[in-house]
Amino acid sequence: MSAFIEQLDTAAARNRSLLCVGLDPSLPSMPIDDIAEFNRAIIAATSDLVCAYKPQWAFYEAEGIPGIEALQATIEAVPDGVPVLLDAKRGDMDNTARAYAKAAFEQWGADALTVNPYQGHDAVQPFLDYADRGVFVLTRTSNPGSAEFQDLTVRRNGTEGPLYEEVARQAVAWNDNGNIGLVVGATAPDELARVRSIVGSMPILIPGIGAQGGDLEAAVRNGTDENGRRALIAASRSVIYASKGTDFAEAARAEALRLRDAINAELERMSRPWP
Amino acid sequence: MSAFIEQLDTAAARNRSLLCVGLDPSLPSMPIDDIAEFNRAIIAATSDLVCAYKPQWAFYEAEGIPGIEALQATIEAVPDGVPVLLDAKRGDMDNTARAYAKAAFEQWGADALTVNPYQGHDAVQPFLDYADRGVFVLTRTSNPGSAEFQDLTVRRNGTEGPLYEEVARQAVAWNDNGNIGLVVGATAPDELARVRSIVGSMPILIPGIGAQGGDLEAAVRNGTDENGRRALIAASRSVIYASKGTDFAEAARAEALRLRDAINAELERMSRPWP
Repeated sequence: MSAFIEQLDTAAARNRSLLCVGLDPSLPSMPIDDIAEFNRAIIAATSDLVCAYKPQWAFYEAEGIPGIEALQATIEAVPDGVPVLLDAKRGDMDNTARAYAKAAFEQWGADALTVNPYQGHDAVQPFLDYADRGVFVLTRTSNPGSAEFQDLTVRRNGTEGPLYEEVARQAVAWNDNGNIGLVVGATAPDELARVRSIVGSMPILIPGIGAQGGDLEAAVRNGTDENGRRALIAASRSVIYASKGTDFAEAARAEALRLRDAINAELERMSRPWP
Repeated sequence: MSAFIEQLDTAAARNRSLLCVGLDPSLPSMPIDDIAEFNRAIIAATSDLVCAYKPQWAFYEAEGIPGIEALQATIEAVPDGVPVLLDAKRGDMDNTARAYAKAAFEQWGADALTVNPYQGHDAVQPFLDYADRGVFVLTRTSNPGSAEFQDLTVRRNGTEGPLYEEVARQAVAWNDNGNIGLVVGATAPDELARVRSIVGSMPILIPGIGAQGGDLEAAVRNGTDENGRRALIAASRSVIYASKGTDFAEAARAEALRLRDAINAELERMSRPWP
């Protein structure tokens, strides 16, 4: 098992939490205009309530070099023992993929990264070669148009099924280093259950609750493994912008607590409570 | 027709060139250790021989903030009238895609960007909304594993065909702003011909000649439109590392000239010469 998975399991157990808070700074929504300061306050208020943080690369890059410097400061502000999953949906071939992996894991210091599977196994392998880091493969995404290609019926070796299931099966086949996770949106609970049935106990990142309207309970029920673990239920805007006032960090804590406890209530109903 | 396509056509006609030089700085391969200075020398030596430059984001990001500053200096060093296609294979949904588009087109100043289609139309639209910029959709990539998903037989509305052809058909359907291009590797010449037959005169970025071993003449023959235009034949390492000595810029010019003329010789054989 990868060092990343151990780190994730340990953080989840310590904080009794499957909640992953997305750090997606958008200046128009923020009560202060310093991204790093905003994130440090959110992290200080919630780091005992989460299993991971997920900064979304795009929101930092959109602010240019100062935005990327704020991402570095954000990752440094996350306490040891709480993993950072950089959501950057990288993917390319060969030496280019190696450069992306070097950037994410060495320059920016991410513990895990989201990647896009469209280019196939050899484009994902350079990320997997960082055996102590996590690599989350986009499988069935949470956006309205995700079905357009991901649900197309594909044929392989005489069997038929949607493309996203084939991606999930390949992710299982690629998992020699035990460091692969998957990304499946909470907005597609049936597809989430299908992916879970294919991937066993591999971690699944589940965005789409909160602002996108996915069903939290269904995400927990369909997304966790047989022990009620290994799901990262992600919420971003609903937590970090819970208040647009100076009490934003307290409000973020209150919403993170509410979500963690709602997830844990569902785990209780499933007879999979934390010890 | 998008302002980007006009810019591309104008540069190609002025320089009588379908050659796109990839600016992929890799310090171990470079004779000097200043990325911006290296690229400025390459650009100064080749800007009358190309239809576009293609910096690959990963190689800059791999060097951290100084690398991204070198990317900015590189884009600024490209003369007006030669478009810059940022190869970053971005893709995400909704406000995240808008942030990626803002970064590429406003912060970094790219004229065009490569994007990944896996998440579907709504994840590409925020890039297309920059109607004066080009958006190149990954279709059939040049890497060894590209067939793994891209060649899977998919069914839609009772017809069957490989996934990459479905991506090409959708790219045509999404092209309301006339600013979409496609990415098809020179390593797959038959698939390139299929895509060209689907997309009419939309531009196709064709990586994979040079270091990857794709057939230059087949790329020209199968990748250009009915007028022998609208292909961006990309070469990176074979041009910029043509010499590892202090004559690297002269050597890059010699190799770019050789490639441009080989492309033009094929256009002559096809009876599609420059005027």
